[in-house]
Amino acid sequence: MNDATSAEDVVREYWRLMATNDFASVAAVLAPGFVLEWPQSNERIRGAENFARMNAEYPSHGPWRFDIHRIVASGSAADGAAVSDVSVTDGVQAARALSFFTLSGGKITHMTEFWPDPYDAPANRAHLVEPIS
Amino acid sequence: MNDATSAEDVVREYWRLMATNDFASVAAVLAPGFVLEWPQSNERIRGAENFARMNAEYPSHGPWRFDIHRIVASGSAADGAAVSDVSVTDGVQAARALSFFTLSGGKITHMTEFWPDPYDAPANRAHLVEPIS
Repeated sequence: MNDATSAEDVVREYWRLMATNDFASVAAVLAPGFVLEWPQSNERIRGAENFARMNAEYPSHGPWRFDIHRIVASGSAADGAAVSDVSVTDGVQAARALSFFTLSGGKITHMTEFWPDPYDAPANRAHLVEPIS
Repeated sequence: MNDATSAEDVVREYWRLMATNDFASVAAVLAPGFVLEWPQSNERIRGAENFARMNAEYPSHGPWRFDIHRIVASGSAADGAAVSDVSVTDGVQAARALSFFTLSGGKITHMTEFWPDPYDAPANRAHLVEPIS
């Protein structure tokens, strides 16, 4: 990608490549020193190769599909940042990924990713809320 | 706030007001039709008044403190968006809030907020990861 590429363009390309389910192909948008952190589980994964293996080995019931709800991005692919809110499913498992991307030199250098799970609405605030759906 | 205010400025002001623990004061940055959604619990809360009551009534062990890890923002307070990654604690309870803000006319019109909890690192990818800390 060239200097005119936005941070958002790179993140959209990341999710397009993820959706091919050819996880080795995602290396095209990852910097050589790529690092992904999952703060919830205190895990860090280094490099495009480990990242591809992790995705390929993750137990699934079929191909993964990714539905992008929103991307908020700032700056260019040369020096920018972005956040995506994405639903992920293999038709059986479903999760939501909130991914913070750091961009440098046209590639993703760092991701911090969160996987918020559903929880029961607290009874003590029921008088102040309504269901979304 | 005037037309030159950035989306990030409004979000920083939101967290500054939250940190006063005077939750009614947060109304200064909320639009009249303000809506907050928590997709994990399928809850929606409408209006600055309900939002202030919810925060004031939330069981706590002392004043809430907010530590901003990162803000990614795009556009102005007149027409922009931002995401913040914030740690929240009252000295006993601790949580992480990921908040997607929509800005219009200098105010926050909409928030979608997630509260990802810690989980155990899966054993089946231990060969690919390292602890963050």
